[in-house]
Amino acid sequence: MDEMYMELAFKEAEKAFNILEVPVGAIVVHNGKVIATGYNMRETTKDPTAHAEIIAIKKASEYLGGWRLLDCTMYVTLEPCPMCAGAILNSRIDRLVIGTKDYKMGCCGTVVDLLHNNNFNHSVDTKFGVLETECREILKTFFKKLRQK
Amino acid sequence: MDEMYMELAFKEAEKAFNILEVPVGAIVVHNGKVIATGYNMRETTKDPTAHAEIIAIKKASEYLGGWRLLDCTMYVTLEPCPMCAGAILNSRIDRLVIGTKDYKMGCCGTVVDLLHNNNFNHSVDTKFGVLETECREILKTFFKKLRQK
Repeated sequence: MDEMYMELAFKEAEKAFNILEVPVGAIVVHNGKVIATGYNMRETTKDPTAHAEIIAIKKASEYLGGWRLLDCTMYVTLEPCPMCAGAILNSRIDRLVIGTKDYKMGCCGTVVDLLHNNNFNHSVDTKFGVLETECREILKTFFKKLRQK
Repeated sequence: MDEMYMELAFKEAEKAFNILEVPVGAIVVHNGKVIATGYNMRETTKDPTAHAEIIAIKKASEYLGGWRLLDCTMYVTLEPCPMCAGAILNSRIDRLVIGTKDYKMGCCGTVVDLLHNNNFNHSVDTKFGVLETECREILKTFFKKLRQK
């Protein structure tokens, strides 16, 4: 089941790839239904907050009509950065499924763990490694192409 | 000088207070000029990302025409949460001036320090305690009123 939803997040990452954005995609699922999707648009929008996760969280809040994304799971192809891990905490998302680790900025356990800190008022059930190879390889291909330019 | 700019951030916090939002305000200053302002609008917009800092960062990026807020200082009345500290990192803001500490969610040194982590590709010069009393008291007054309701 997680693989099926991650495929949808991966399709979002491909959309970012196709417009020369770092290929990261995310979706939000509520009671089995995909209620929001997003892909990285930082360069296109010139907005440092326009990561896949933030875009998907904003859309999911709009869909649910409130800022608390209760009973929601996010699927994201790359481990969230500090900003996005923080947005996931703030929105009270229950569960996070991650494609591949981010060894530079990952804040869900790899560099820092913001999602399991007893000081905060929320924690998030986190699963790594779903469709890991695809999620990692699209990033590798992207950065290889970028360096060749 | 920092006090003068923090007064402007505090005026933003007052706008939030007046519409029953947790009173936090932020401004972004570039070469001495205020290029963006923001106040917390989470309840009004029903958007978990609508914190003062995120709103100000988006406006500043629009103003500067790019996602890198180089040579910018942010003044914010309350220590940023994980999401906002992460957005400050992502936008490459140079300097952050904070009114009062957040002992629950503060990610600029109080609970976690995201702004001085050698693993990340950016760090932020951070100063605490400018107009601390005013910035703290408006929050205290707000939560006292909230509990009385």
